[in-house]
Amino acid sequence: MTHPIIFHPLDGTLPDSALVGARARRIARMRKAGLPVPPAVALDFAAVAALTEGADLPPLPEGFTLPVSLRGSAGDSAWGGPQAMLNIGFGPDTRNTIATTLGEAAAWELERRLIQTFGTRVAGLDLEDFENLYYDQLKLSPQPEEEDLAAIVAAAHEFYADEEGEEFPMDARLQLGRAVRAMAGEWHATTARILREAKGAPPDAGLGLVVQQMVFGLGEGSGAGMFQAVESNSGRPTRTGRFLPNAQGTDAQRGARTPHLISAEERAAAGQSLPALEELFPEIYANLLARHAEVTALFGEQMALFFTIARGEFWILDAVPVRRNPEAAIRIAVDLAKAGYITREQALLRVEPRNIGETLHPQIDKDARRDVFGSGLPASPGGATGRICFSSEAAAALHAQDQSSILVRVETSPEDIRGMHVTAAVLTVRGGMTSHAAVIARGLGVPCVVGASDLDLNLRDGTLTALDGRIFREGDIITIDGTTGQAIAGTMKMQPAAPSDALDTLLEWADQTRRLGVRANADTAQDASLARRFKVDGIGLCRTEHTFFQGERINAMREMILAEDRTSRDRALARMLPMQRGDFEDLFEIMRGLPVTIRLLDPPLHEFLPHSATERAQLAREMDIPVEKLTHRIEDMAEFNPMLGKRGVRLGITMPEIYDMQARAIFEAALNAGKKTGAQIVPEIMIPLVSANREVELVKERIAEVAKAVEMENQASVQYHVGVMVETPRGALRAGDLARSTTFLSFGTNDLTQMAYGLSRDDAGRFMRDYVGKGVFPEDPFHTLDLEGVGELLLLAARRGRSENSDLTLGLCGEHGGDPASIRFCDVAGFDYVSCSPFRVPVARLAAAQSAILSAKRGE
Amino acid sequence: MTHPIIFHPLDGTLPDSALVGARARRIARMRKAGLPVPPAVALDFAAVAALTEGADLPPLPEGFTLPVSLRGSAGDSAWGGPQAMLNIGFGPDTRNTIATTLGEAAAWELERRLIQTFGTRVAGLDLEDFENLYYDQLKLSPQPEEEDLAAIVAAAHEFYADEEGEEFPMDARLQLGRAVRAMAGEWHATTARILREAKGAPPDAGLGLVVQQMVFGLGEGSGAGMFQAVESNSGRPTRTGRFLPNAQGTDAQRGARTPHLISAEERAAAGQSLPALEELFPEIYANLLARHAEVTALFGEQMALFFTIARGEFWILDAVPVRRNPEAAIRIAVDLAKAGYITREQALLRVEPRNIGETLHPQIDKDARRDVFGSGLPASPGGATGRICFSSEAAAALHAQDQSSILVRVETSPEDIRGMHVTAAVLTVRGGMTSHAAVIARGLGVPCVVGASDLDLNLRDGTLTALDGRIFREGDIITIDGTTGQAIAGTMKMQPAAPSDALDTLLEWADQTRRLGVRANADTAQDASLARRFKVDGIGLCRTEHTFFQGERINAMREMILAEDRTSRDRALARMLPMQRGDFEDLFEIMRGLPVTIRLLDPPLHEFLPHSATERAQLAREMDIPVEKLTHRIEDMAEFNPMLGKRGVRLGITMPEIYDMQARAIFEAALNAGKKTGAQIVPEIMIPLVSANREVELVKERIAEVAKAVEMENQASVQYHVGVMVETPRGALRAGDLARSTTFLSFGTNDLTQMAYGLSRDDAGRFMRDYVGKGVFPEDPFHTLDLEGVGELLLLAARRGRSENSDLTLGLCGEHGGDPASIRFCDVAGFDYVSCSPFRVPVARLAAAQSAILSAKRGE
Repeated sequence: MTHPIIFHPLDGTLPDSALVGARARRIARMRKAGLPVPPAVALDFAAVAALTEGADLPPLPEGFTLPVSLRGSAGDSAWGGPQAMLNIGFGPDTRNTIATTLGEAAAWELERRLIQTFGTRVAGLDLEDFENLYYDQLKLSPQPEEEDLAAIVAAAHEFYADEEGEEFPMDARLQLGRAVRAMAGEWHATTARILREAKGAPPDAGLGLVVQQMVFGLGEGSGAGMFQAVESNSGRPTRTGRFLPNAQGTDAQRGARTPHLISAEERAAAGQSLPALEELFPEIYANLLARHAEVTALFGEQMALFFTIARGEFWILDAVPVRRNPEAAIRIAVDLAKAGYITREQALLRVEPRNIGETLHPQIDKDARRDVFGSGLPASPGGATGRICFSSEAAAALHAQDQSSILVRVETSPEDIRGMHVTAAVLTVRGGMTSHAAVIARGLGVPCVVGASDLDLNLRDGTLTALDGRIFREGDIITIDGTTGQAIAGTMKMQPAAPSDALDTLLEWADQTRRLGVRANADTAQDASLARRFKVDGIGLCRTEHTFFQGERINAMREMILAEDRTSRDRALARMLPMQRGDFEDLFEIMRGLPVTIRLLDPPLHEFLPHSATERAQLAREMDIPVEKLTHRIEDMAEFNPMLGKRGVRLGITMPEIYDMQARAIFEAALNAGKKTGAQIVPEIMIPLVSANREVELVKERIAEVAKAVEMENQASVQYHVGVMVETPRGALRAGDLARSTTFLSFGTNDLTQMAYGLSRDDAGRFMRDYVGKGVFPEDPFHTLDLEGVGELLLLAARRGRSENSDLTLGLCGEHGGDPASIRFCDVAGFDYVSCSPFRVPVARLAAAQSAILSAKRGE
Repeated sequence: MTHPIIFHPLDGTLPDSALVGARARRIARMRKAGLPVPPAVALDFAAVAALTEGADLPPLPEGFTLPVSLRGSAGDSAWGGPQAMLNIGFGPDTRNTIATTLGEAAAWELERRLIQTFGTRVAGLDLEDFENLYYDQLKLSPQPEEEDLAAIVAAAHEFYADEEGEEFPMDARLQLGRAVRAMAGEWHATTARILREAKGAPPDAGLGLVVQQMVFGLGEGSGAGMFQAVESNSGRPTRTGRFLPNAQGTDAQRGARTPHLISAEERAAAGQSLPALEELFPEIYANLLARHAEVTALFGEQMALFFTIARGEFWILDAVPVRRNPEAAIRIAVDLAKAGYITREQALLRVEPRNIGETLHPQIDKDARRDVFGSGLPASPGGATGRICFSSEAAAALHAQDQSSILVRVETSPEDIRGMHVTAAVLTVRGGMTSHAAVIARGLGVPCVVGASDLDLNLRDGTLTALDGRIFREGDIITIDGTTGQAIAGTMKMQPAAPSDALDTLLEWADQTRRLGVRANADTAQDASLARRFKVDGIGLCRTEHTFFQGERINAMREMILAEDRTSRDRALARMLPMQRGDFEDLFEIMRGLPVTIRLLDPPLHEFLPHSATERAQLAREMDIPVEKLTHRIEDMAEFNPMLGKRGVRLGITMPEIYDMQARAIFEAALNAGKKTGAQIVPEIMIPLVSANREVELVKERIAEVAKAVEMENQASVQYHVGVMVETPRGALRAGDLARSTTFLSFGTNDLTQMAYGLSRDDAGRFMRDYVGKGVFPEDPFHTLDLEGVGELLLLAARRGRSENSDLTLGLCGEHGGDPASIRFCDVAGFDYVSCSPFRVPVARLAAAQSAILSAKRGE
């Protein structure tokens, strides 16, 4: 059965926005509420789809007056859509009616506009040609009379017929049918699709259409304009907009004439001489404010009003949620809730969690000296440091290794989107503020500089050359300042942006609402301080090895690894002990009162060893052994599949003295920090890469011995918890066993994903794009938690763990911990916390609150 | 509550062998059946354990006559145990009784034997010292009289008191108590434990003891002997054994005097002059045969009778299952069933599946020229080729890479057992036929040469030097002939041993019994022929890439891999097509009428690329490209974790033309072979490393297109099945999806184990020994299927797959397919088949039959 093509009335009953789109429903709501919106009907998604495939358009409802405007109506207004088409449905009868009511001049002008709109948007002719016809005539008669307008229309008809080989169709129904198909075509264009998919639209998102009777802003006491009551960049209250007398809505947008501002205050502030609408038509201004307040109440949202004044009559053509940047989105939601338009729960649901992340983009320290080597347009704010990548593949490869990249391209194209998803910042040599790179980067919240034309990118040689002759290559470290538009050599000190008052308020509400704890992955005192600042519930993952990659410390680690016997290993471990103890002491002090989970050494030891010949030679000198011997030992430690090799608890079982040292460092640090803070510190010790419970038992026994020794030496009580990082499928399957020996399980979903798929993140970069592109995987599972596979392992493990140990604490650490969809999953699964990077903590707090609200609604 | 220590009577009621051991139960059965077995009682495992921990021995039952013999009674008679101790419980009273009944000489002799046995076995004195006392006296009086015997006993008492600092305890109960503890101590010695664990005993296997009244073979018309009715080496019927007049059982075993044979026929055949028992005591011989037949019927087993003739009276001391090599075990079981002593099911259960494997060990081709560089004792038969390894670790590492090793050691020790489990053959420089290496190798069925003293093994230099000065190093390839005792340089052509008639019969019975199909992993025509010879049900895994590692073919593969564009890749693929087609055609012809499962290309492509500089230079010349470019491309293809990289179906998705070529080769080969054999061939195409169903759909679509093209070109119908090799945990979890698109799922448990554990087999060698040693893993999961983790994934996938597709065929390929425990698992789980290496096929057929019998018993 084919879908019936009907015009849905937008009056008494409210149509489902999932069928007709958000705009159609909005217009119906406003008309139902008695707001002055011209009569309108809608075509639903299925009808538009059927029309594009050749179905016939039914006649408009009885009494519906021509001409009409056509406006796209997508499922979500954020997804955009084709521009409106005005004045469609203009046959000889309509022309006569208009000539009678508005005068001949208006009739000619509308016919001219129709031919131009239809000619360019439907027939695909060149706008410039039409504009030339117009301006050619204006040159002859700068104040055009009726005859001049008639001449232009005649010329337009002639031009159209010449180009198209047929007369312009002065048939209302035919115009309407072709216009609808043209708008549907624009909706399905690749770029439009990619742009809306970047905003979360599904690939098969449909387009509905609103067909609305025209009201005309042409003539005396007429015009068209737009008004909104908040600033788009901050969300702060204002009265702003524009008004163009004797005009239709699209004129103002095109910017052909300078528009009037709306409020006198705004005009004064701008120093503009043209009077504001408030000054031109005070009554209409008052009406506008009153209507706007009604609209705000009706939608519980800050809307931009698009209005037309037709000979003194005020009409709302449409009301669209105010465009807003992330900061504004937060403030608008909070202010609406404070004003009682919406509830706090609604405010919490109104903000996209990822928007929060964007408001907190670190900025480059203002006082730091900058070695600027290029500059362009500040297309997306924030600062980021990383290695230069000349391709999305290279960026993906670095991402897979947890390294930060800067994607440098001449321009970006749709196929760079995946690279832009994983890069820290984007720099393009060409393009403006609305170039692909700029639009996508802003959408993704990635810092971006475009049009840095003082740089020369030579992909063949793999060089990026600055004006001063400096050459940068792939892998070199640079910093991008998307706020100022600068490209800077090397790394820069970053400062986290401070959360706004509005964000603080919103997150306070989130904390009152959420059930799920939010902890941070924090390895250093700096990370921990940042996490505390973001009001974290604890540290869920401290990777003890991370501090050993730095400076002097790597030598202690290397000596420990390369020790030939127990004595020299113990000596190296003794050097490491105070370093680790100091680190832990700082963490415990900073996090006082909150839980801290410390993961015992995890990576394969050869990761710490020097790779270059120079480094090896240096280390051999320091260790006073022949370089050949050192090289041989290093080669000997190489593994075929390091990810599946001797790492994690396997180190703890085979070289137990390492974990002994770490346990001692943890306990001594806890005692020291406890003395300073005056409260007992109970560290949580996490064992990585467990696949069998016996591993846990063996490590636990040794930890207990160390605890006892530290207690004896210090004559003080040592308390602690032991838990498991569940990273192997077998660990998940055996969670019941693990839960009997431990107090918490924390899922390391990065590794769990690798092992469930049999897919190394380091190597997947080579084909992940292909895979996602072909829909083999709906999403990169390292980016979005794979609910069907990995998710099932989590659920199964959670159930088994809790059934053996009802007090078991369940957490998730790893990159998915900051992903709202994964947070929702953990919340529903009854987890106790997620742990994510400090910058994601506010995101996770909001996402957790949203999940709790959703669950409450569904009675979960 | 402590365990009550009682002597279980071995008479009317039959004790549980799980409590008292197999021997005690056997003796009870024989006494109950009225056979002439001296009265006996038993101590159970718990009692022996309690006694070793200091508990007191209760008095012997009323009327039990001293002295007694003590015999170990383990849970399974195959596990061995301490040697019997005779004449225990010999106080002054007993001595007098014996002197009265058997004469003074016998009394002195028994006392001498007691002191010697007790002195060596209990007090730990040196046997040689006691024997010297005896022979010193014999030198003085070669025909010792009573006084001489008395003098020896006196000397023995004196020696004992000197050495031990206390008089020899002439107290029956004290002797008994200490003897029991000594035997328990021998049972718990490390070597004994390792030897029985190699035979399948659990680590905590207990020892029971049989305490039996002595009957004395000393004096006229007396003696001790052993008889069995089948040959130990072949299982063929015979009448063999030995008899020593005027002796106790242990004398014959010690071989101090030449024993008499049992039957006249055997004596004649051996050309021995000493008369046989049959000739010495015809009546006793007839009695012996009659009693033996009763024993055979009683146990349904071929038993060796240990008997004593006491002044013309025939006594059975014990009956022990005849020692047998694998070949004999099979024939004995089959013959017992044919003779109606046992059922066919019992015969099937009687043979250890792994024994079958041993009877089929390949032998070195007799006609091949041999480059022998060393020789020793032929300690365990069969031939094997592999790379020299000087340590068990090295052997394990090679095993992990699917490579064959030869373990070369000066001698082996218990810690080499794990290496011996995974090596193809063992060569030791020292040791005899009962050395550790020889015993363990025979137990494991591994070819072994010991005592190759013409070789010089220098572990410090890592060299094995032959007499002719040739030097072999770790990694060099040699061949061991365990049948002749030779060490041969290089590889040798092998010939599979032919299955014996008895084995053929047994396997026929197995085929009539089993439910589970047994297929072979076969890559080549040679493999397939072998598999057919072993009556396989089909090929379960043909690894298409394996033939491309050989000779000329690797070049075609390399050119395909390194092709810079689609055209040159297609050219290389076109060269590969006829090679693959030819291989498949051979396989289909050989396997006609049976299913053949062909796995599409699986390994990471860089595995095919040259590693050495020489090889790279040569390839560059052949491909006519600069070597730097080639090297760069090869480096570019390297992966961090190849096991988790771009392999399996990921190749098929990203370079679909490879699978296209393979599908074409399969279809064309099927048509060609179909024409030759006259029957349509329906190949099964298996997609490797699947983690998402969409992968299957995409590959299936392309295969269907190729099939259609081949059908069109040949005007012939192409039929085939598509299935999935389930190797990733996610694949197992999503088996329901996969089952909807496919007709079969075959579990690749090698990879599934790697991914479930997050453990690379290539790298696990470094710590697996540690892990199994510490009991972290009860077994190497690559050796024995991990039922708790990997097994659960299999069960879950099987259930999900079948619930979506009730016709789904389920199989298991990979090394576990030939392991009896894994076969049992698959059978119970309702799998359709297992697939294993051709040599394991007979093993699997028997194991599957045993499983079916077990299930029938349990009503599964």
